[in-house]
Amino acid sequence: MTDTMTTRTGGRAARRAARAAPLAQHLRPVRPGLEGGLYRPLSDKGMADIHQAALTALEEIGLADAPASGVAHLSRAGAIPGTDGRIRFPRGLVEDAIAKANREVTLYSRDGRHDLDLSGTRVHYGTAGAAVHMVDALGRQYRECGVQDLHDAARICDVLDNIHFLQRPMVCRDITDNREMDLNTVYACCAGTTKHVGTSFTDPSFVADALEMLHLIAGGEDKWRERPFVSNSNCFVVPPMKFATESCLVMEACIEGGMPVLLLSAGMAGATAPSTVAGAIVQAVAECLAGLVYVNAVKPGHPAIFGTWPFGLDLRSGAMTGGSGEQALLTAGCAQMHRFYDLPGGAAAGIADSKLPDMQAGWEQMCSNVMAGLSGCNMIYEAAGMHASLLGFCHESLILGDDLIGQALRCVRGIEVTEETLAVEEIRAVCMGGPGHYLGTEQTLGRMQSDHVYPALGDRTSPKEWAERNKPDLIVKAALRKEEILATRAAARFDPATDAALRRRFNIHLPA
Amino acid sequence: MTDTMTTRTGGRAARRAARAAPLAQHLRPVRPGLEGGLYRPLSDKGMADIHQAALTALEEIGLADAPASGVAHLSRAGAIPGTDGRIRFPRGLVEDAIAKANREVTLYSRDGRHDLDLSGTRVHYGTAGAAVHMVDALGRQYRECGVQDLHDAARICDVLDNIHFLQRPMVCRDITDNREMDLNTVYACCAGTTKHVGTSFTDPSFVADALEMLHLIAGGEDKWRERPFVSNSNCFVVPPMKFATESCLVMEACIEGGMPVLLLSAGMAGATAPSTVAGAIVQAVAECLAGLVYVNAVKPGHPAIFGTWPFGLDLRSGAMTGGSGEQALLTAGCAQMHRFYDLPGGAAAGIADSKLPDMQAGWEQMCSNVMAGLSGCNMIYEAAGMHASLLGFCHESLILGDDLIGQALRCVRGIEVTEETLAVEEIRAVCMGGPGHYLGTEQTLGRMQSDHVYPALGDRTSPKEWAERNKPDLIVKAALRKEEILATRAAARFDPATDAALRRRFNIHLPA
Repeated sequence: MTDTMTTRTGGRAARRAARAAPLAQHLRPVRPGLEGGLYRPLSDKGMADIHQAALTALEEIGLADAPASGVAHLSRAGAIPGTDGRIRFPRGLVEDAIAKANREVTLYSRDGRHDLDLSGTRVHYGTAGAAVHMVDALGRQYRECGVQDLHDAARICDVLDNIHFLQRPMVCRDITDNREMDLNTVYACCAGTTKHVGTSFTDPSFVADALEMLHLIAGGEDKWRERPFVSNSNCFVVPPMKFATESCLVMEACIEGGMPVLLLSAGMAGATAPSTVAGAIVQAVAECLAGLVYVNAVKPGHPAIFGTWPFGLDLRSGAMTGGSGEQALLTAGCAQMHRFYDLPGGAAAGIADSKLPDMQAGWEQMCSNVMAGLSGCNMIYEAAGMHASLLGFCHESLILGDDLIGQALRCVRGIEVTEETLAVEEIRAVCMGGPGHYLGTEQTLGRMQSDHVYPALGDRTSPKEWAERNKPDLIVKAALRKEEILATRAAARFDPATDAALRRRFNIHLPA
Repeated sequence: MTDTMTTRTGGRAARRAARAAPLAQHLRPVRPGLEGGLYRPLSDKGMADIHQAALTALEEIGLADAPASGVAHLSRAGAIPGTDGRIRFPRGLVEDAIAKANREVTLYSRDGRHDLDLSGTRVHYGTAGAAVHMVDALGRQYRECGVQDLHDAARICDVLDNIHFLQRPMVCRDITDNREMDLNTVYACCAGTTKHVGTSFTDPSFVADALEMLHLIAGGEDKWRERPFVSNSNCFVVPPMKFATESCLVMEACIEGGMPVLLLSAGMAGATAPSTVAGAIVQAVAECLAGLVYVNAVKPGHPAIFGTWPFGLDLRSGAMTGGSGEQALLTAGCAQMHRFYDLPGGAAAGIADSKLPDMQAGWEQMCSNVMAGLSGCNMIYEAAGMHASLLGFCHESLILGDDLIGQALRCVRGIEVTEETLAVEEIRAVCMGGPGHYLGTEQTLGRMQSDHVYPALGDRTSPKEWAERNKPDLIVKAALRKEEILATRAAARFDPATDAALRRRFNIHLPA
């Protein structure tokens, strides 16, 4: 309420410096995998109704366009191909797949320090794609993005504590050959970060090359299969209720190669999915359940992420919108359905419709991100850097997203209620014969770092201090931080022998 | 995902224009008083523990500094004045007050169109104070604020759908006499909006004058008492656990005059309240329970709002911070305690620490606002316009807050699960012999306006359209909207005879 408490003395300045020092990982106030789930947008009956509606849709409507191999796998499992080209899923088959599916998926990091445990309501935030523009925040420009932009994004993600994984956020538009684009995407991501990487493949025939690259990076196929550090983001359906034939073949190849699969159903509510939040969730759940049956028919227990990603639509224009309240509800509702099934799940949040990292972007990104976290979503994709309803990616915004997500994670961590935190004895000591305030109590000092998240770039100065510091601009600060990150050598780069081997075998576009 | 759907035809443009027309109030997708409560940051045991801790604090620690009249009222009710100057509250006394308190408070508007029903988990958003600076968003300047700024804020709030009440957001620093300042604050607010107004009084002796002014505005004391359209925001405690002697006397005078009271406990976690979220809530709850006993001792059933407003502190600097995740948890936890007691309650959210309406401000304002709404807080104060941790108020930010809060309200409204919204028949019709998409279905068209919130100033154009429109700046758009609002005659202005009477009786600083 006042500025007076900020008056400084030398001793206070020294203490302040000490408090600003980095904290050991295990003492940090927020971490990957904090447990959410206290926000429950759906009632128990609502969840049961959605489940039953999805089962009905699978049983009576089914999905069209499965590839021949998929029809074979699914039929063997018990699905029923119809004369109308749609394959239908009896309720029992779906319920069996849910019961038998792998519910404790680990997404590995390359260095072992950033493994993601997808179970229960454990929450992780990361990027996803696929933007076709790079946003120049200071220049207020959109331009085509390329492989260097992607690699830079990976390097930035690597050093941001609250970005837990890197699904490739951008398309390498400077690589025209699709095979080379897919392979260079894997290279640019993995050379930039040791965190878990997600990517997609344009054609099933590219998967073998990608696996060869990953075996080289891992130091052998056995090492890759032991700790697969790349997963396949797979748009296996073309909503409504059609399999994406080629993507299904990609999926089969990835399963064969030991790569975890993100079963991604990306309907747009009002265009390719029903316009109601509940209806869009029903369709996404039905489609992902079909995918789950498919994966488990190919290889029982193969790690799969239940990727219900319904997107919003601005019904006035027919254009996609990802920054709305409707989007936040779509995502949070899906996350709760993941918990209904007790399956590792993911959905999209953090998308800004705004073209630039401005106030609108801030409120859009926080709304869906914090609600996704509170609802206990295991994998929150698109969480940082995404603008223009997924068309643009912005490095400065990604960096600011680290602060934004740190705050969301603090909310996910929630309120601890223990005898100590209830603090009755502390209140008593302070009020009755004590100093009358809590500034220097042991409890206050002890929790200064373990309980509180401090923004790295977010500004908390008083107007006076702010003016004295020449009114720092948030985007300029983020741009400086970006330069700082990219000026250092990437810790994730491959050792010279591996890099040389990769470059001999593949046409790598990034300079060595 | 693509821009292709936005291709226009003449017919589509016409339909789009029709859809952009304003919707009747009862059809609007969001409204004041939507019910929240699906986010529950505290477990049932957590709430019971907080309640018991608060009762223990009241029984064993009690509050100091009650005025003589308060000691008399409270003693008569059963509180026990101690020889140490603290008055203590037996558990039974507090539980009786909770049982007997008024749990269905209506905060009236002057025109009857914006009455607020504070009951259950019904959510309302509005401003609060008290900033001492006006933020010039385009000029990036802070300056002292005055009565004209306050009046302009009231006029802006009057036309914003998602700002449901006006608690005076700024101090009239251009009026040096405290009595004149308080009276001109009432005038400037009420002359600017017919929505419910909240304000405070510096001295108990000013209340009689204020009531006289309100009787004049209402057209008589009986009319005022029938529908009191101004409430008293009363900082009745100086945390930790001390009554604010003068404010208590203000409260007694307001109760006497028929004015609803906001029992506002504004501790700072780590300074004037425990540093833990749970502990700060315990103390705020204890203090507000003391206030509840007090109000009901003076006048049983007098309308009171349980105003637990614990604020966060940046423990590194000792300065207040309101934009943090900790703040969002403090507020949401308090809101859940209001529901535990089934008492009309309010708390603070939407505070930005950022000095300007930038991306940081957006994420800070959304985080606590949406969490407060989801937790079912009846009165969400400080929800729009507040920067620099409450030191600065910004008209442009207030205007943008209308979009931000509209989105938060959409989230509060939640997910409707009915046979129609589950949409199985719609999915069937679209997929089996239908068009294969939902763009033109009756369900989609019918819900285009009733289900979806469209931002007024938030931008959803594609990068191409955005460039064609010369990349509109969000703050510039808000500044233009402000000019537009202030260029029209204020609908809330008093009729000429009333205004003349007010100006004869009081020294009104605003020009006639």
